[in-house]
Amino acid sequence: MRKENRVTRWICWIVVVTALFFLGFTIGWFARPQHHSPENNGRFDEHLKEFLNEMQSDQIREHLRKFTRLPHLAGTEQNLKYAEQIKTEWQEFGLDSVEMVPYDVLLSYPNKTQPNYISIVDPHGNEVFNTSLAEPVPEGYEGVSDIVPPYNAFSAKGQPEGDLVYVNYGRTEDFFQLEQEMKINATGKIVIVRYGKIFRGNKVKNAVLAGAKGIIMFTDPADYWATGVKPYPDGWNLPGGGAQRGNVLNLNGAGDPLTPGYPAKEYAHRLSPDQGVGLPRIPVHPIGFHDAVRLLENMGGPTPPNNWKGALNVSYRIGPGFAGDFTSQKVRMNIHTNNQVTRIYNVIGRIRGALEPDRYVILGGHRDAWVFGGIDPMSGAAVVHEIVRSAGRLLSKGWRPRRTIIFASWDAEEFGLLGSTEWAEDNAKLLQDRAVAYINADSAIEGMYTLRVDCTPSLHTLVYDITKQIASPEQGEELSLYDSWHRRDNWTNDRDAPRISKLGSGSDFEAYFIRLGIASGRARYTKNQRTEKYSSYPLYHSVYETFEAVERFYDPSFRRLRAVAQVRGGLIFHLSDSQLLPLDVVEYADALGKYAWSISQLAQQHRDAMETYGVSFNSLFSAVENFTVAARGLHERLQTLNTADSLQVRVMNDQLMYLERAFIDPLGLPGRPFYRHVIFAPSSHNKYAGESFPGIYDALFDIKNSAEPHKSWEEVKRQISVAAFTVHAAAMTLMPPA
Amino acid sequence: MRKENRVTRWICWIVVVTALFFLGFTIGWFARPQHHSPENNGRFDEHLKEFLNEMQSDQIREHLRKFTRLPHLAGTEQNLKYAEQIKTEWQEFGLDSVEMVPYDVLLSYPNKTQPNYISIVDPHGNEVFNTSLAEPVPEGYEGVSDIVPPYNAFSAKGQPEGDLVYVNYGRTEDFFQLEQEMKINATGKIVIVRYGKIFRGNKVKNAVLAGAKGIIMFTDPADYWATGVKPYPDGWNLPGGGAQRGNVLNLNGAGDPLTPGYPAKEYAHRLSPDQGVGLPRIPVHPIGFHDAVRLLENMGGPTPPNNWKGALNVSYRIGPGFAGDFTSQKVRMNIHTNNQVTRIYNVIGRIRGALEPDRYVILGGHRDAWVFGGIDPMSGAAVVHEIVRSAGRLLSKGWRPRRTIIFASWDAEEFGLLGSTEWAEDNAKLLQDRAVAYINADSAIEGMYTLRVDCTPSLHTLVYDITKQIASPEQGEELSLYDSWHRRDNWTNDRDAPRISKLGSGSDFEAYFIRLGIASGRARYTKNQRTEKYSSYPLYHSVYETFEAVERFYDPSFRRLRAVAQVRGGLIFHLSDSQLLPLDVVEYADALGKYAWSISQLAQQHRDAMETYGVSFNSLFSAVENFTVAARGLHERLQTLNTADSLQVRVMNDQLMYLERAFIDPLGLPGRPFYRHVIFAPSSHNKYAGESFPGIYDALFDIKNSAEPHKSWEEVKRQISVAAFTVHAAAMTLMPPA
Repeated sequence: MRKENRVTRWICWIVVVTALFFLGFTIGWFARPQHHSPENNGRFDEHLKEFLNEMQSDQIREHLRKFTRLPHLAGTEQNLKYAEQIKTEWQEFGLDSVEMVPYDVLLSYPNKTQPNYISIVDPHGNEVFNTSLAEPVPEGYEGVSDIVPPYNAFSAKGQPEGDLVYVNYGRTEDFFQLEQEMKINATGKIVIVRYGKIFRGNKVKNAVLAGAKGIIMFTDPADYWATGVKPYPDGWNLPGGGAQRGNVLNLNGAGDPLTPGYPAKEYAHRLSPDQGVGLPRIPVHPIGFHDAVRLLENMGGPTPPNNWKGALNVSYRIGPGFAGDFTSQKVRMNIHTNNQVTRIYNVIGRIRGALEPDRYVILGGHRDAWVFGGIDPMSGAAVVHEIVRSAGRLLSKGWRPRRTIIFASWDAEEFGLLGSTEWAEDNAKLLQDRAVAYINADSAIEGMYTLRVDCTPSLHTLVYDITKQIASPEQGEELSLYDSWHRRDNWTNDRDAPRISKLGSGSDFEAYFIRLGIASGRARYTKNQRTEKYSSYPLYHSVYETFEAVERFYDPSFRRLRAVAQVRGGLIFHLSDSQLLPLDVVEYADALGKYAWSISQLAQQHRDAMETYGVSFNSLFSAVENFTVAARGLHERLQTLNTADSLQVRVMNDQLMYLERAFIDPLGLPGRPFYRHVIFAPSSHNKYAGESFPGIYDALFDIKNSAEPHKSWEEVKRQISVAAFTVHAAAMTLMPPA
Repeated sequence: MRKENRVTRWICWIVVVTALFFLGFTIGWFARPQHHSPENNGRFDEHLKEFLNEMQSDQIREHLRKFTRLPHLAGTEQNLKYAEQIKTEWQEFGLDSVEMVPYDVLLSYPNKTQPNYISIVDPHGNEVFNTSLAEPVPEGYEGVSDIVPPYNAFSAKGQPEGDLVYVNYGRTEDFFQLEQEMKINATGKIVIVRYGKIFRGNKVKNAVLAGAKGIIMFTDPADYWATGVKPYPDGWNLPGGGAQRGNVLNLNGAGDPLTPGYPAKEYAHRLSPDQGVGLPRIPVHPIGFHDAVRLLENMGGPTPPNNWKGALNVSYRIGPGFAGDFTSQKVRMNIHTNNQVTRIYNVIGRIRGALEPDRYVILGGHRDAWVFGGIDPMSGAAVVHEIVRSAGRLLSKGWRPRRTIIFASWDAEEFGLLGSTEWAEDNAKLLQDRAVAYINADSAIEGMYTLRVDCTPSLHTLVYDITKQIASPEQGEELSLYDSWHRRDNWTNDRDAPRISKLGSGSDFEAYFIRLGIASGRARYTKNQRTEKYSSYPLYHSVYETFEAVERFYDPSFRRLRAVAQVRGGLIFHLSDSQLLPLDVVEYADALGKYAWSISQLAQQHRDAMETYGVSFNSLFSAVENFTVAARGLHERLQTLNTADSLQVRVMNDQLMYLERAFIDPLGLPGRPFYRHVIFAPSSHNKYAGESFPGIYDALFDIKNSAEPHKSWEEVKRQISVAAFTVHAAAMTLMPPA
């Protein structure tokens, strides 16, 4: 070989070698995944499918069977036992940690030696009729002790005696009609109202405002009786001897009445019992319709308007007092219920997030029941149990969600959402900074027709997405849950999609959503809202809410409960494991537009007054417009987000997460410091109903009865201004952060 | 060649090539820096040095000269002109954006056609003496119009006439002594008090509570006269014809009196003027000591205790009224000041953060001045201007901080911190989620001795670190600022380091720190606190606060102002550009320990009562212990943090950032909904003094005058419980997040 040749050859060699090295280097450089690059989204879908498929009807049946054998009222030993059992099983299922979290809160129980009842007394003071002391115990539970008789928790003690006045449902408008139109004064009387339409605590508050010295609430078949259905145990209607338990507080989100704003822990300072928040000052007692007939049948006074008449074979006369031979008879309430500070236990389980341990997705539902809790709450708790079991299975196969999941079994929900509220108070600072979403898990079934979802607008899209991935549980229906639901309950007025409603209150999401501003939702199986007009479900809060009620009537195959488990579980899965939070801000914008329009229409009922007092909704409309632009802008930025940049992703997720928080006014709604959500809160007149722009709504509601319209309209204007400010401020949170 | 040979050779080739490729691949793989790996910390130090060195004394002198030529009271045209000038210059300096942000707030001005003054009137109603209508104008400013005469902004209008009662400083304890010991009733009287010790608004509130129908405040040389110093223009003492302007509101953090809690924007709903927050109900007027002598010299009544005597050549008798020949003379106040809603302007400039644009570090100080504002606030505003200029220079060289920096020139601070508070209200939701720290920039100098820093405990370490990197401005002193400061003001009681104090109120950090819970601090040059006992500085809020006062007396070389610029600027630089936030949670733990001990010692003055009412600080001590353990734990986790993992860093920084937020109680301190910081707030008795555990402090303060000790002690217990809860909850935020 010539020397030149060899040199050339060596040069070639070196070039090739170098080129190869650089090729390798370059490929290596770019092949390496960047730190926390988008998670393997292929596996996300796979894991989700695995998670949903893991959930089994038979397992849910077993969970429900296991936790409904004995009564487990909040504060009782049995409810602590169930808590311990849940703790143990959640640990066995594989959660990273499970703890019991106790609080000492004010509960209320009947006096065991002095029963509560209502009497008709003759002029000599003899009790000529007494209401029943307990419900007939259902078959199979005869030997069970510790069934608390029907009572209204937190009733004042006392033995008021007087004439009855019947006030329909005891709503603000019913008392208004009684006083203004019928000119009947309830002061010093015992009012009797039927259950339904609004939260019972609001009825009691109205009775107190009207000056009543006691209030009796009865279940009218018109409101709790499905046509063509037999009473339990032959069907799921309420027998005449059954009655609805329930607390009668007006807490407005305060939690434990003695420690408003702070957790009821060992160092808590307690108000004196007479200063407790929301405690009624008069005796209250619930009765079934057998007893109600006896109290109503001899009443005198005017005949009622038609919409005051229920389905009992009585005239529903208003009173006051009895008619004819019975005028000298009075009614006496005998109430000996005691309030006492009692220890309750939440069970809190956790799966630690792999990448963002400081982001929390919460699935919480209560465990305490008035008696067996076959529907309320154990149908929901069984579903949570199955979700935890399924998550544990996935964990054992190596899955771990991006964010932390918290599972909660709340105590003392029935006594005013106490367990969930105290925990929210205890953890408020963490939750405010870190909570992504709260999914509520109270009763999973209240009917046999289709799905029911109430949630914040930013969860709409996720709910639709998830339900498309779940099969309808209805026998012989080869549809997705979405399609089945869509077919049965179309959101016709607004859009061609399944109906989703606003959150009200009355369950454990309240502190999370309305006080803390955490995106929240709930899902359950429900009745046909169009044809089944009864309030709630007939057996609600009675001794007849048993395992058998579910197994025989509501969900024999347990497939409906499984579908609810998949919805609740799917929500938790997506929220905890999606790289980008599945929250839709444009849906929120659309919803705000509807709400603003709707509240302005309500005000239009007073067009002249609006002109007189210079009331305008323009600032609110302009804020909503602003919000809409900002929401669309964020949506567009999402499309071009570099998902490989974990900081950029986090910044964006923080904007999504904190949107709901932006609707919180730290000053609270007027007179309700713990209801702080400017967009959603219950009306002051009915805790169950979620109103949009509740501050404006309540101010408009008050116009009707106002003696000082100038002041009332000033309040409307103030509330519009607060709403406009809040929506503007929320819009700012959606804009590019700098 | 043989075939085998060739095959072997090819195999070798392939092996070598493959090996080379993999070598390249492997090196490429590992050589590639991970996304957002720790920033080049070498360059951090370099940039910081460059930034600090960029700041120049001459530039500060020029800025100060420029912005003190004309009076620029809030709401006037001149103050808007300065705002526009600042906006233009900040843009020229190179900020990413600068905007003017207007609000329409309640301000208060003297009536231009009806001057305010105080008279002595004879029995026929003739004014035999009138106080001066204006201060003698300082040399060089003779032709200047629009110098507002001394007045107390937001005084009620009126012409009350009556006897004078002298009440020392007008403190709670002074009125207590007047009423309980001297048995003098101030009801229906005009009280006269000296300026000093506490915020003037508290004096007015006390006078109103005592039933006075007017209050006069005078500057006593005992409180505003440095020994051996001549009055202005020959020195920096206040001439006898000078007087202290100032507002007399009791806002407790509400901002604009007509829009508490919400920004004063176009759609804001305004309270009616008589419902405005914190407005005094009686006339108030300030006078200098020349006039004060004339009002005091003929007073009758008892001789005062020694600590009620000032330095004027009068007897300081208490009254009521005049003595001897003058008993029939009365005092009449003539006050015609008007409140009016007026537009104000904040200037907001921004540098967008490179990696975390959604994290905000704020440097804010006010621009509005009572007259020229030579010291208050323009010495501070000039310093901010120089910091902005220096940051702009760095930006032009390619530097960009990790986080967003916000510079603010606030308006209407002198009228109750209005500009800063309205902006805080407007941006509350963003700030709550995103603000890392707020550094205040009011007057940069109030003395010629050494540095003064008030800040949250988590900033202590950073302040020490920064001052070690800055040179002492004192002539001929070859020390770091830290050493100079340490030598002059050692924190002897607590530790061997320069003294750092708690934040009180009285400047624009209030809404950021006490309402929103953003880590805050302030720094300025000050007098020798041990030897110079006068309140504030003598020329405070007078017409004599000129550029010349600073140039001739306070800082002829402008090196002191430069040192303050470097401290304020250094804080902003570190907070915005450090990868890990320079916040020290262990310092916070130590401070909490001291505060808990100190407040418990205060309670020990009532040892018997504590036993009677079962008052214990154990829950608070236990919470502090808990916090300390958590703080140390976080500190340890910081040592092992993988700083290459940007998500882990962000999670940790969030914990650091949100710590201060955790001390906020959304329910606020008792009766003060906008003072929400449980650890730091002004006492209810003096807005200037920052108290630790202010809820407990105020409850203990009230014990002294309490007619119902049982109730008062219950309140102490409640406050201890709130403090313990808050510290426990804050500790939780420091623990591993899941």
